[in-house]
Amino acid sequence: MWATSPAIAAFMLSAYTVAEFCSTTCTSAEVPTGTPIAGDYDGYLRPQVHFSPPRGFMNDPNGLHRSDDGTWHLYYQYNPTDTVAGNQHWGHATSPDLYSWTNQPIALYPVNASSFIFTGSAVTDPNNTSGFFPDQQDGVVAIYTIATYEPIELQTQAIAYSRDGGYTFTPYDNNPVLDAGSSNFRDPKVVWYEDHWVMVVAFSQEFVMAIYTSPDLKSWTHASNFTQYGLLGLQYECPNLVEIPIDGEEGQSTWMMFVSINPGAPLGGSTSWYTLGDFDGYTFTPHANDIHFPDWSKDAYAAQFFYNTPGEAVLVNWASNWQYTNAVPTGPKEEWRSSMGQARRISIKQDPRLGAIAASEPYDMSPVVDEELASDTFGNGSLVIDFADVYSNAVLIEMNVTNLEVLAGSVNYTFLSPISGEYLTGGVLFNGNNDIWQDRSHIKGFEHPLFTGKLSTAQIIDDTFTMQVVFDRTLIETYIQDGLQASTSTFFPEEPLTILSVKAGGYGASNTTTSVRVRSLKSVWRPQEDDAGIVSGGYAKNMTSGHNSQRYSAGWQ
Amino acid sequence: MWATSPAIAAFMLSAYTVAEFCSTTCTSAEVPTGTPIAGDYDGYLRPQVHFSPPRGFMNDPNGLHRSDDGTWHLYYQYNPTDTVAGNQHWGHATSPDLYSWTNQPIALYPVNASSFIFTGSAVTDPNNTSGFFPDQQDGVVAIYTIATYEPIELQTQAIAYSRDGGYTFTPYDNNPVLDAGSSNFRDPKVVWYEDHWVMVVAFSQEFVMAIYTSPDLKSWTHASNFTQYGLLGLQYECPNLVEIPIDGEEGQSTWMMFVSINPGAPLGGSTSWYTLGDFDGYTFTPHANDIHFPDWSKDAYAAQFFYNTPGEAVLVNWASNWQYTNAVPTGPKEEWRSSMGQARRISIKQDPRLGAIAASEPYDMSPVVDEELASDTFGNGSLVIDFADVYSNAVLIEMNVTNLEVLAGSVNYTFLSPISGEYLTGGVLFNGNNDIWQDRSHIKGFEHPLFTGKLSTAQIIDDTFTMQVVFDRTLIETYIQDGLQASTSTFFPEEPLTILSVKAGGYGASNTTTSVRVRSLKSVWRPQEDDAGIVSGGYAKNMTSGHNSQRYSAGWQ
Repeated sequence: MWATSPAIAAFMLSAYTVAEFCSTTCTSAEVPTGTPIAGDYDGYLRPQVHFSPPRGFMNDPNGLHRSDDGTWHLYYQYNPTDTVAGNQHWGHATSPDLYSWTNQPIALYPVNASSFIFTGSAVTDPNNTSGFFPDQQDGVVAIYTIATYEPIELQTQAIAYSRDGGYTFTPYDNNPVLDAGSSNFRDPKVVWYEDHWVMVVAFSQEFVMAIYTSPDLKSWTHASNFTQYGLLGLQYECPNLVEIPIDGEEGQSTWMMFVSINPGAPLGGSTSWYTLGDFDGYTFTPHANDIHFPDWSKDAYAAQFFYNTPGEAVLVNWASNWQYTNAVPTGPKEEWRSSMGQARRISIKQDPRLGAIAASEPYDMSPVVDEELASDTFGNGSLVIDFADVYSNAVLIEMNVTNLEVLAGSVNYTFLSPISGEYLTGGVLFNGNNDIWQDRSHIKGFEHPLFTGKLSTAQIIDDTFTMQVVFDRTLIETYIQDGLQASTSTFFPEEPLTILSVKAGGYGASNTTTSVRVRSLKSVWRPQEDDAGIVSGGYAKNMTSGHNSQRYSAGWQ
Repeated sequence: MWATSPAIAAFMLSAYTVAEFCSTTCTSAEVPTGTPIAGDYDGYLRPQVHFSPPRGFMNDPNGLHRSDDGTWHLYYQYNPTDTVAGNQHWGHATSPDLYSWTNQPIALYPVNASSFIFTGSAVTDPNNTSGFFPDQQDGVVAIYTIATYEPIELQTQAIAYSRDGGYTFTPYDNNPVLDAGSSNFRDPKVVWYEDHWVMVVAFSQEFVMAIYTSPDLKSWTHASNFTQYGLLGLQYECPNLVEIPIDGEEGQSTWMMFVSINPGAPLGGSTSWYTLGDFDGYTFTPHANDIHFPDWSKDAYAAQFFYNTPGEAVLVNWASNWQYTNAVPTGPKEEWRSSMGQARRISIKQDPRLGAIAASEPYDMSPVVDEELASDTFGNGSLVIDFADVYSNAVLIEMNVTNLEVLAGSVNYTFLSPISGEYLTGGVLFNGNNDIWQDRSHIKGFEHPLFTGKLSTAQIIDDTFTMQVVFDRTLIETYIQDGLQASTSTFFPEEPLTILSVKAGGYGASNTTTSVRVRSLKSVWRPQEDDAGIVSGGYAKNMTSGHNSQRYSAGWQ
């Protein structure tokens, strides 16, 4: 249940309209339609350059696409009525740059009291293949799973169309469009391939990623299965079958099968892996039999790629892990749970040992990069800054180590609270394997037996090492060697971490040099706050409610 | 360098003979030939039902085989002259039961100052296919890697033969028997297939497990490659290609490709995975494209299967991880580093979700199981015992949880030091995914950024859950659901952990019942101690030295 602050209570009373349908699960409050849910983004645990829901619980990114006008649409698995998973809707936010997000009204509602809207994708349909858009080129179709619990457990694929550019959706009359009679059949991701639509969708507990094709998004034909491959965990989820550009080779690309597994990840709980291969519109054929992790830490799951991004591949991860997502302290402290990871550009690059792999780089950060806080270049040395006066409590560190002549030395970064003494630390040991590590075990605000503290990977390098660190209150992401490796970790301090130390040393008399630059990041939420500190969201404030012809919303649980 | 206790100094002076060859790397002491190295097995960090070397540094198990007389032979990568890796020999120990080990003289010595003996396997050759054994049926051939650093880096495969049942070896005159001109070509594992020998060997940095065949162990023909499969890490190492019996189906078996990777394991550093398939004597064909972890924790690497164990498959892991093995406190405190994991019987069983997987069960523990310390059966409840008077400081816990009717409840075990307050804990959360976890982060004797504290896995179960825990001073192994999952973790307390608590609860009013039995384990080392507390080892005490026609030994580094 919600702990209600005065500010929250005020907007709950003022802004909400009552859902048209209710059931026995409705209790003390309702889910608004036609108006965005407001949120307090000022808490010290709230990321300032990442998306998190106004309140309630968020998990998988859904329906990611870019409109032709350049607007990025992020939908997400959303429980607006509690800070734990359940009562799944599609929340919605839009952005011009993938950093500054405007909360929008909930886009998809449960069909009835025993059916939830689970994960899915969205496509633009400029050629009106679906028939939903006779008079427009900016039609959007969402393809998603309806998970029904009564009278039987069943998961089917459904579609809904939007004639206003993705803000409101009308479910298709003849849903579901794909029913395999399975209770574990979900997370459709659809792309266009030459002359037809392609869906990849998980038969989760059979470890099958099924590929279907369609001319119109309504009728689907089974084409092939990608099955029993790589790490299985206990379920396959959230597949992506996407084309990835090859870095430095204009117009060249390869295909990727991207798989999320939960539970049963090697680090515990949730993780994702991918393999590269060929796709002929019907069958995906891996180049080899290997798998790779797009993220070596523990809080990147259910990634989805945006649709309609010609020439580039952009994904967003859910920055959490099912092992502890329902227990993290942002729930009791600030009435929200889970952030999205930073949007990442994915491209194929050459790893010195592994050959072609998918590199992850932060999407253009110029909209949020603010002023330089410090920069320095040294051999054995360190840089310490107090950034307590940076409102966002978010910084970008760039490190560049050159002339790595000997197998020795290290670079570490440490974020510290001078009040609580807790700290988050990480770095690299230049020992040939080059162990890259991160340790959140000295952070005091969250103790859980499954919240792994120490994480690491290894990376072959030549004589130069680069690392970017995006630090954002409760989320830290790192990018190694121009994205050959990336990590996403949550951490939940008792007090804000406001001192940063970057230290390099152990090189002896070699000419190894470390350059460090630290810049502050802007808050994308603060400009949206009203006088009471509340972010109210966008679009629907100027509209009448009731865009959804069918909606159902269970209330506070 | 060694910190020398009086007892150690005494046997160093008395027992060692000087190696026949020496070089500039020889310094203050020498490696004995023809006599076992003595060791002090009485330190509080020394496992009492696991093998660890008398002193110095141990890594991969090598040459594992069983003699027809029932003796189990364990060789191992061994640096007798320091407690960090280097100066690799093959140490040797023998056992009647896989628990009680007798240290034997070093079996294989470096060829010269710039060549070490790396990992390999051993076979018995009763039919004298090799020609080395015209007059006997108990001949043993070791097949191993010679790693040369000067004048060029080169790894080749060599053989040596033993006419005394595996105690002393003579290198073959025409070594190497396999030279691919590679500097990363190692860890040959040989088995007999119908009418020929089969070797699987790693081209480590090309991610190729190459299969060769031979009629005589001397001439090898390339047959096929198993390549770019599963998780690559940064190197493939220590392959096994072995036949695994199917549990409950007399005489039925399947084949397994077992791969170790280092570094780059998901948990950091070293790990192993396997896949099941068919083998026709020349080519291994996986049944699917999946991989599985034989151990979900972080300290099981480089496992090797014993040769000559008809009807069963038995492996031993090296119970450590390259990320921190050279830093653990047994070196400075007790002059040894690394234990072997418990011998495990591997068989194919059916997992409720995954189907056929390789289960790991402790090899028959009856030789070391001692008296019952406690047993109890309860719903919500606990059992606490003080086992400070158990000399071995080693216990076996067996838990059996029945009537799991609801998705709720948990069972935890905790080992605690009443002196230091440090504790090791783990258990299972019955939440559908059934998170199985272990946490060594509250143990105080070893702090290292790569020594991951919290580890976990998940397991589908029906209404019954079983767990065995083998606790042995600095090593804890768990077996879940009759071996469907297994773990191996080291931990290094400041004080012995002598209090055990097992707690079950959270089941509400359900009929869930937990039965717990705790038994002490015998020390396999104490009976071998002399009056000074030193274990001197076996075989060679009654022999003259000098069994090795070629040997080289670098001294203390």
